[in-house]
Amino acid sequence: MKEFREHHTKSSGIFFKIDKVIYNKKSKFQKIFLFENKDFGKILTLDNLVMLTEKDEYFYHEAITHPALSLIKKPEKVLIVGGGDGKAIYEVLKHNPEEIHVVEIDKEVIEISKKNFKWGKVFENKKLKIFIEDGYEFVKKTKEKYDAIIVDSSDPIGPAKKLYRKEFYLNLKNVLKKKGVLIMQAESPIYHKKIQRKIYKELKKIFKICKFYFSPAPTYPGGIWLYIFCSDFYNPLKSKIKRIPKNLKFYSEKIHKAIFEIGEIL
Amino acid sequence: MKEFREHHTKSSGIFFKIDKVIYNKKSKFQKIFLFENKDFGKILTLDNLVMLTEKDEYFYHEAITHPALSLIKKPEKVLIVGGGDGKAIYEVLKHNPEEIHVVEIDKEVIEISKKNFKWGKVFENKKLKIFIEDGYEFVKKTKEKYDAIIVDSSDPIGPAKKLYRKEFYLNLKNVLKKKGVLIMQAESPIYHKKIQRKIYKELKKIFKICKFYFSPAPTYPGGIWLYIFCSDFYNPLKSKIKRIPKNLKFYSEKIHKAIFEIGEIL
Repeated sequence: MKEFREHHTKSSGIFFKIDKVIYNKKSKFQKIFLFENKDFGKILTLDNLVMLTEKDEYFYHEAITHPALSLIKKPEKVLIVGGGDGKAIYEVLKHNPEEIHVVEIDKEVIEISKKNFKWGKVFENKKLKIFIEDGYEFVKKTKEKYDAIIVDSSDPIGPAKKLYRKEFYLNLKNVLKKKGVLIMQAESPIYHKKIQRKIYKELKKIFKICKFYFSPAPTYPGGIWLYIFCSDFYNPLKSKIKRIPKNLKFYSEKIHKAIFEIGEIL
Repeated sequence: MKEFREHHTKSSGIFFKIDKVIYNKKSKFQKIFLFENKDFGKILTLDNLVMLTEKDEYFYHEAITHPALSLIKKPEKVLIVGGGDGKAIYEVLKHNPEEIHVVEIDKEVIEISKKNFKWGKVFENKKLKIFIEDGYEFVKKTKEKYDAIIVDSSDPIGPAKKLYRKEFYLNLKNVLKKKGVLIMQAESPIYHKKIQRKIYKELKKIFKICKFYFSPAPTYPGGIWLYIFCSDFYNPLKSKIKRIPKNLKFYSEKIHKAIFEIGEIL
C-alpha cells in the first residue's frame, strides 16, 4: 500500500502518500492505521478516516477546547468524551483545571498516541482520570458534575454512532453544572449539512444557547469544520473571556469572535 | 479516465470521480478539462489544477471581489486580470460599475465558460470589455486608471508565472487610481507559505496598506485560501462599507471583519 485514500463520499476525497507505516491493526472497535507523510507528518486514521495529522491538528484541537474553557473563571472538572489521541487533554490542561476525566472506548488508541505523539506525556498527568468505556454509557451513569464537556468523537459511523442521539444529549446536560459549557465537534459544513441540522434541532431543545462555530481543518472533508457550543449560562459572543493561554497557533480573543461569526453562516 | 486527481504536492492531494467529461482539450496555453461530479457539479481544471467547482466557487468569488468593491462608493472602472471563467465579473457587476475590463490570455477558457456555466451570460454584458492578451503586458502598456483591480490568476506555474513578479505589482499600482484597491488571490496558507511571504514583502514596499484575508475553499489545496488587499487609501478594517449586494451566500459586513482577523494569523 503506497497511498492512503479517504473517500468523503463515493465521488470525492483526499489522498496521502504513505512514506512509512507506523501502526496498522484492527482493535476490538476499529481499524487503526498510523503512518508518516512528508506534507503532514504522522497521520492517525480510524476506520479509514483521518483523525489528526501532526501538521494541522492545532486548528481542530484549539477550536474544540478554548472557546469553552476560556470563558470559565476557574474550571474544576472537565470531561472529554473520546479524544484518545490526547491532544484535547493537552489543550485543556492549559486552563489549569483540577481534574480532567477522559472516556475513551478504545484503549489501543491511547496506547498508540502515548508512544507516537509528542504530547504523549499528557497521559501521565496526575489531574487525569481515564475511563476505558463507552462514552454513552459513562455519561448515563456517572454522578459527577462538570464545568465543561468536550465531545471529541469520531464520525457518526462505527463506535461513535450513539453519540449523535438525543438521549446522549440529555445525559450530557445532566452531568453538566448549571454554569457549564458543552462543546461537540459537529462535522463538515460542506459534506454533512443534514447531520448538522439534526444536531442543532435536538440541542436547541435542551440548551438556552446553541451556537455553531468553525475552524479550518485542512485534512478533514471540505477543509473546514464546525463545532457546536451549548450552555444555559454563557453566550460565546457576549460572555467575557477570562484567559487566553500563551503560545497558541490559532485561537485568540479576536479569533474567538471571528469563528462564531463565520460558523453562523456556514 | 474515471477519476480526476489533483496533486497538491507529490505527497498529497484531492480526487473526484468523473461522472461525465464535458470538455478535454489543450488550448494554446494550457490543458483545459471540464467534467461533471456528483458532489461538486461541474468542475473546471487548468493544467490539472481545480479552478472552480459549481458547488463551492462562491466562497472564492465573493471573497476576491466584495471586500474591495464594497468600500468604493461609486466604482467607475474595474479591471479583472484572468478570471476567464466569468464568475468574478458576475460578482463585480453587483456593484454597478460603469465599465469592467477583463484581460484573459486564453480565449478558450471564456468560450467554454460561456457555454457551460449558469453565469455564462455575463460575457454579453455591455459594460464589459474583454482583452484577449497577456495580463502582464496589458497592465504594462494600458493608459487606463482603475478604481479596483482584481487579480484572479491561476497558480504561479504555466501562463500565470509572470503575475507573481515585482514588475507586475509596480505596473498594477501605475494603473490604479489614487484611491484604488488591488485584490490578488494569494494561494494556500497550508501549502504556499513561501510564495505568500514573497508576495507580501514586495507589495508592502509599494502600498501603504497590505492585508491578507481568507475564505474557505473546500476544493483548493488545504481547504482554505488567502487573498491580499492593497491600497494607499482604504483600510479594510477601518474604512466604511458602502454597500453589501443582496443574496450573497458568504460575504457580509460581519464576515468582512472576520475574514481579515483570520487572514492575519494564517
